[in-house]
Amino acid sequence: MITTDICIIGAGPVGLFAVFEAGLLKMRCHLIDALPQVGGQLSEIYPQKPIYDIPGFPDVKAQTLVDNLMEQIAPFHPSFTLGERVESLERQPDGSFHITTNEQTVVHCQVVVIAGGLGCFEPRKPDIAGLEQFEGKGVAYMVKNPELLRDRRVVLAGGGDSALDWTVFLADIAREVTLIHRSDSFRGAPDSAEKVFELAKDGRINLILQSNISSVSGNGHLQEVTITAKDKTVTNLATDHLIPLFGLTPKLGPIADWGLQIDKSAIAVDTVDYSTNVERIYAIGDINTYPGKLKLILCGFHEAALMCQSAFKYVYPDQKLSFKYTTVNGVPTF
Amino acid sequence: MITTDICIIGAGPVGLFAVFEAGLLKMRCHLIDALPQVGGQLSEIYPQKPIYDIPGFPDVKAQTLVDNLMEQIAPFHPSFTLGERVESLERQPDGSFHITTNEQTVVHCQVVVIAGGLGCFEPRKPDIAGLEQFEGKGVAYMVKNPELLRDRRVVLAGGGDSALDWTVFLADIAREVTLIHRSDSFRGAPDSAEKVFELAKDGRINLILQSNISSVSGNGHLQEVTITAKDKTVTNLATDHLIPLFGLTPKLGPIADWGLQIDKSAIAVDTVDYSTNVERIYAIGDINTYPGKLKLILCGFHEAALMCQSAFKYVYPDQKLSFKYTTVNGVPTF
Repeated sequence: MITTDICIIGAGPVGLFAVFEAGLLKMRCHLIDALPQVGGQLSEIYPQKPIYDIPGFPDVKAQTLVDNLMEQIAPFHPSFTLGERVESLERQPDGSFHITTNEQTVVHCQVVVIAGGLGCFEPRKPDIAGLEQFEGKGVAYMVKNPELLRDRRVVLAGGGDSALDWTVFLADIAREVTLIHRSDSFRGAPDSAEKVFELAKDGRINLILQSNISSVSGNGHLQEVTITAKDKTVTNLATDHLIPLFGLTPKLGPIADWGLQIDKSAIAVDTVDYSTNVERIYAIGDINTYPGKLKLILCGFHEAALMCQSAFKYVYPDQKLSFKYTTVNGVPTF
Repeated sequence: MITTDICIIGAGPVGLFAVFEAGLLKMRCHLIDALPQVGGQLSEIYPQKPIYDIPGFPDVKAQTLVDNLMEQIAPFHPSFTLGERVESLERQPDGSFHITTNEQTVVHCQVVVIAGGLGCFEPRKPDIAGLEQFEGKGVAYMVKNPELLRDRRVVLAGGGDSALDWTVFLADIAREVTLIHRSDSFRGAPDSAEKVFELAKDGRINLILQSNISSVSGNGHLQEVTITAKDKTVTNLATDHLIPLFGLTPKLGPIADWGLQIDKSAIAVDTVDYSTNVERIYAIGDINTYPGKLKLILCGFHEAALMCQSAFKYVYPDQKLSFKYTTVNGVPTF
């Protein structure tokens, strides 16, 4: 059994930074992530993409940010269980927890921090006949690496920001881009919608409105989508890729059984300390929600800092917490 | 008259980052700071000191962080009024403001963001006969550059974390360190107090408890402090420096007249958007307070992001705000 002060579920950037804030208060952390490496979606989905909104970095590659965070927390020697999923959480008589993974790893901790990010969500899959058999064979629900779409024929479906943004982005990269949307107006940002209409006018993309994809076909790999318009017209369109972008739905797994209050597909927390409604369980980063919430990494960093101040009382019930600046004291390691 | 969307009072790291978050929403910013350069206390007090708790930077010199932030916000062309103090704020009939500085610079803006940080506070000066005449001549109320104290004789006074931390820090640098405190127990962190007691036991510092400094003397520069113990014993101690560390008191200047709700020497804000009780005035960074508040730069960054989402409605009353990720869209400049 692994014994730690704080067990952090999710080793994305916010979970990693929580180790630093905990370390300053002499609290040890163990992190569990279903992915085989740390970094969350930064490392899994867009390691080479630049991020522009981390304060102090005019731009930084996602993987570089993860590497920097790992260096920053190294003095506090966090331990990791990677490639395993949390299966159960059992409250002990003294208030602490036993967390068990699908590989039977058991972690004993005083505090649980859920920092599962979008890893706790999954794409909403549209109801299209035959779709699942082409998953990974032309059908994907997110764009992990746009370079793989270079000079290919791509069909996108959806009416939100993701669909609009990727249409604009891929117009420069793919050989042929088609956006299919069931309505003739978009839910996404007005200026993005405007760009899409302009690209369509200039013949740089195909825009098919008031239509849905009704079926897909191919021979081992996706080859064709069938489009049914509201007026019942049916068209076949040859393509290499289909990317339905209909948003995310929560996939909280066993977390859903822990009695946590869920609001708007996220875990409701108190902004004083980002605690959930269950004592000793906190939620930080993209998995949580509160009035004003923004799903930004920099917000998760703030949440991690305030969470640690609050978690301290469970780890050191007899000690008075005294707030210190690293600029004066440096980083006292352990 | 300078016309802008958001006028930010205070060009420290949090004020600077607010320009970036505002820029993403196409809001222009003008910054006013009483200091002659940007960067706030980072540039003014400890430009060469490493900071360890900025997420993603295992360590970064204070001035480097400021330089990076200036580069990050450059695409949004902020304008600056430096070396001037805000003197008055006048509400216009349409809800906007005219801000006037002591040099009669006038800024017209839709939204005011107070990011004055500790620049809005001043050290609490003890009541010691003759103290003021030695200010800058041996007497200082904060340690701006510890290197200036190398191999010198230093007297510190106070019982909080600053007094304890600087005593520990200067024990390695100064020729002679004396800490004077009126009580025999400390308000600061127990482990810091313990270190100070150990240093005293080892003869590495002088610790004078149950005593106050009653007067100071010198010939142009500080030369001696007179210490009066609670039992009325009077001692003279030769020294080069005296640093009374009795905390800070707010020096809000004209801001105090704006009707803002003050709580614990700081401006009370709502954590939904870091708005004050006065419509269109926000407060972010070390100047504000709310339940759970930590005076950390990284918290100010988060506050800046949420503030901008809320300020948008005053700058673009007819537009719907749509939240976007820079990772997908890059940084659209103006």
